Amino acid sequence: MRLSELFTKTRRTPPKDEESANAIFLEQGGFIKKEAAGVYTFLPLGLRVLNKVENIVREEMDRVGGAEILMPALHPAENWEATGRWNKFDALFKTESRFGGRYALGPTHEEIIYPLLKHFLSSYKDLPIKVYQIQTKFRDEKRAKAGLLRSREFRMKDFYSFHAGDKERDKFYEEMKKAYLKTFRRIGLKVIVAEASGGTFSELSLEFQVASLAGEDTLFLCKKCGSARNKEIAASGEECQKCGGETEEIKTIEVGNIFPLKEKFAEDFGLKFKDTKGKEHLVSAGCYGLGTTRVMGTAVEVGHDERGIIWPKEIAPFQIHLVGLDKDASKIYSMMIAEGREVLYDDRRGATAGEKFADADFIGAPVRVILSARTMQDGSVEIKKRSAKNAIMVKIKDLLKYV
Amino acid sequence: MRLSELFTKTRRTPPKDEESANAIFLEQGGFIKKEAAGVYTFLPLGLRVLNKVENIVREEMDRVGGAEILMPALHPAENWEATGRWNKFDALFKTESRFGGRYALGPTHEEIIYPLLKHFLSSYKDLPIKVYQIQTKFRDEKRAKAGLLRSREFRMKDFYSFHAGDKERDKFYEEMKKAYLKTFRRIGLKVIVAEASGGTFSELSLEFQVASLAGEDTLFLCKKCGSARNKEIAASGEECQKCGGETEEIKTIEVGNIFPLKEKFAEDFGLKFKDTKGKEHLVSAGCYGLGTTRVMGTAVEVGHDERGIIWPKEIAPFQIHLVGLDKDASKIYSMMIAEGREVLYDDRRGATAGEKFADADFIGAPVRVILSARTMQDGSVEIKKRSAKNAIMVKIKDLLKYV
Repeated sequence: MRLSELFTKTRRTPPKDEESANAIFLEQGGFIKKEAAGVYTFLPLGLRVLNKVENIVREEMDRVGGAEILMPALHPAENWEATGRWNKFDALFKTESRFGGRYALGPTHEEIIYPLLKHFLSSYKDLPIKVYQIQTKFRDEKRAKAGLLRSREFRMKDFYSFHAGDKERDKFYEEMKKAYLKTFRRIGLKVIVAEASGGTFSELSLEFQVASLAGEDTLFLCKKCGSARNKEIAASGEECQKCGGETEEIKTIEVGNIFPLKEKFAEDFGLKFKDTKGKEHLVSAGCYGLGTTRVMGTAVEVGHDERGIIWPKEIAPFQIHLVGLDKDASKIYSMMIAEGREVLYDDRRGATAGEKFADADFIGAPVRVILSARTMQDGSVEIKKRSAKNAIMVKIKDLLKYV
Repeated sequence: MRLSELFTKTRRTPPKDEESANAIFLEQGGFIKKEAAGVYTFLPLGLRVLNKVENIVREEMDRVGGAEILMPALHPAENWEATGRWNKFDALFKTESRFGGRYALGPTHEEIIYPLLKHFLSSYKDLPIKVYQIQTKFRDEKRAKAGLLRSREFRMKDFYSFHAGDKERDKFYEEMKKAYLKTFRRIGLKVIVAEASGGTFSELSLEFQVASLAGEDTLFLCKKCGSARNKEIAASGEECQKCGGETEEIKTIEVGNIFPLKEKFAEDFGLKFKDTKGKEHLVSAGCYGLGTTRVMGTAVEVGHDERGIIWPKEIAPFQIHLVGLDKDASKIYSMMIAEGREVLYDDRRGATAGEKFADADFIGAPVRVILSARTMQDGSVEIKKRSAKNAIMVKIKDLLKYV
C-alpha cells in the first residue's frame, strides 16, 4: 500500500485523554481512534493488525475441531434471568425495545449457546460439540482507561465445548491449553500459564498472562520451575506449589483463560444428553476465552520504545516499510509487491526525511527499507530492523533475500 | 466437510414462530437460529453463506478504492444530539453506563465517521476519502417478522465517500452504481435500480431492488425501457418518466441504496476542507449501504422451492452435496477435496436415502452427487443440479469435468 492512499495520519502529539502506552501509541500511529471511554474505531492499519490476530486464532480453533458460528449481541433478558445473572452481572449493558423486548448486550455467551444447543443435542452420539465465535462484546467497565486492555466494547474469541462427562472434557481441556500456547506463540506474545480461581462457575481455571507493568493482574511466578499462580488464590509471598521454589511477584495482562464449567448453566437450561442406556445426564462443558483486541493492545504494551510500536512479525500491519527519500522507490515497491511482500510505501513528496523516519518508527513494521540518492550510488538500499539499532546496506538485486 | 461433523441438524417441521420463507427455510436447513424477534445466531452453514456475501462485497468495495475500517456499535449520545437524531431517529436502541455515559447502538454511522474525519481532513489534498466497514448494526424495528429481511440486529456494509465538491462526488456516485451492479451480479441476485426519495438528507437516492412478493417496497417498473421509480415518489399508475412507456406495479426487497448526502452532517460537525486558495468549504459526501444479512435472506426468498433452498453458486455454503447411499463415498470425497472442490459429504450411516435427499434439498447446494451400489455397477455417479428436475449419470473418472 502507498502511504499517500491512507487517509489516516500519524500524530506528533500524544492524545490528551489517554494514559496507557497502547492507547497512546495506537492513536499516534493511526491504528485506532477513541470515540468514548473504552470505545474505539479501528482504522485501516489497526484493522489489518486485528484481522491478523483473529485469523491466527481462527486457524488454531479450527484445528482443534471448533465450528465457527456468530451469535448476536442482543440477548433476551429471560436468558439472563434464567441464570440469575441479569441482576448479578455488574458490567451488563442493558437496552430495550419500544415494543417490549428487554436485552442484555452480550459480555459472554453462555446464555445463548446453552439454550441454542438444546435444539441439536439429545444423545451421547451428538457429542462432543465444539463451537466458537469471534465477535464484538460489551462490558460496562468502571475504569475504561487502559486502551484496548479494558474496553467497554471489545472483540473476543469465545469457544464452548460440550462433552459426555468430565473425563472427555478434561482431555479436551488439555488439548485446548496446547492450542492456546501455540496461538500465542504464533502471535508473538510470550505467555505465562497461571492457575487461577474459577470464579462462581468453575473449580479452577488457567489464565494466559503476559508480563507487563501495565497489567492489572499479579502472579506469583516460581523462579525455579516457572509455574505460576494468580495472587487471588495464593497466599502472600508463598513458595511454589509445584516445586517449593522461591516465587517472585509480577504484574501481568490476562490475554486468555480456559475454564472447565461446573454444571450450573447445564442445570439452568436443562441441557442434557442420553447415554448408551438412555439415561439422562447434564452435559459437561468448558469455555475458552481470548480477547483479540486486548491481544493487540498487549502486543503494544510489551512491544514499543520511546519512538513508537515494534510489532511482532505475524501481526504487523505490514512487513516492510519502504521509504523513498530523495529518490522515487516505485520500482522497488512494485518489485516487492510482485514477489508477494507486504509493503507500506511512503511515497509522500511533501514530507521530510525526519518525518518519514519518525512515521516508520511510529507505525512499527518489522523492517524498514530506505532508498536515497546516497544508497543508489552503489545500487543499494539501507535495511534496518525496527528492533535493531544499526542498519545494513544491501544491493537492490539482493533485497528479496533479506526481506 | 463431513455432515457428521456438523452439530446442527435440518428440521422436518417448520418453526412455529416464523412467517417468512427465508426465516423458515434458513431455520429448517440449519443456517440460522432465532434468539428473539429479529435477532439470530448464524450457525456454521449460515456463517459460510454470510462470509461469502461479505467477501464479494469487500472485494468490490476495495476495487473502488474503499479503505476498510471498523467503527463501534456504542455511539456517544452527544454525537446523535449534534445531528438532532437522538430523539428523532425512532428505531434507535439506547443504553447507558453505570458511570454516566449514554450511548446509541449504531443503526448507521454518519455520527461517527464525520467527527472522526475531522482529525484527518483539512485540505483538498486529503480528498477524496473513501471508507467503509462491514459491521453489526441495531434498529428497533416494529415488525421484526421477516427473518433476515428486517432484523433488529443485522449486518451491513456502509461506505462513505468525501469529496472536494459535488461534481467529484457525483462522478464517484456513478462509479459506485456500477460497483453495486457488479456486486449483485456476482452474488447472483437480479436487481432493479429504482429512483427513490433521498429522505431528509439527500435530494434523491438510488435503490437496488429485487422483485419478490415478500418485499415491503413497491416500484413502478417500465415495461418498455426497464427503468423504475419507488412508489413513494411516484404518482399512482404513472407512466414511465424516462420513455413514457406503460409501467407495472411490483413488490420488491431493497438490498442496497446509494445517497448523495446534502451538507447537513458536514454542517453539524463542521467538516470542512481548504481549497487551493485557502478558502474553507463544507465537504461533499455520499453514503452507500448494502445489507449483507438481508442479501442472504433475499437470496432465499427468490431462490427456493417447496423442498428447500436453491442457492446461487457464488454464495452457496458448499458447491457440491455428496451423498453416499448404500456405498461409502469417502474416496470420491477425498478426490474432490484434493482438487479444491467445496464439498459437503453426507457420510451418515443411520440416515435413510429419503432423509439424505431431503437434507440435500433443504441445504440447497447447487449440485448433488450420488454414489450407490446401482450407480457403481458401471463406475458412475448420479449428478443432479438443485435447480433441475432430472439427473444425469457420469463416469466417476469424468466427475471433475462436471462439478
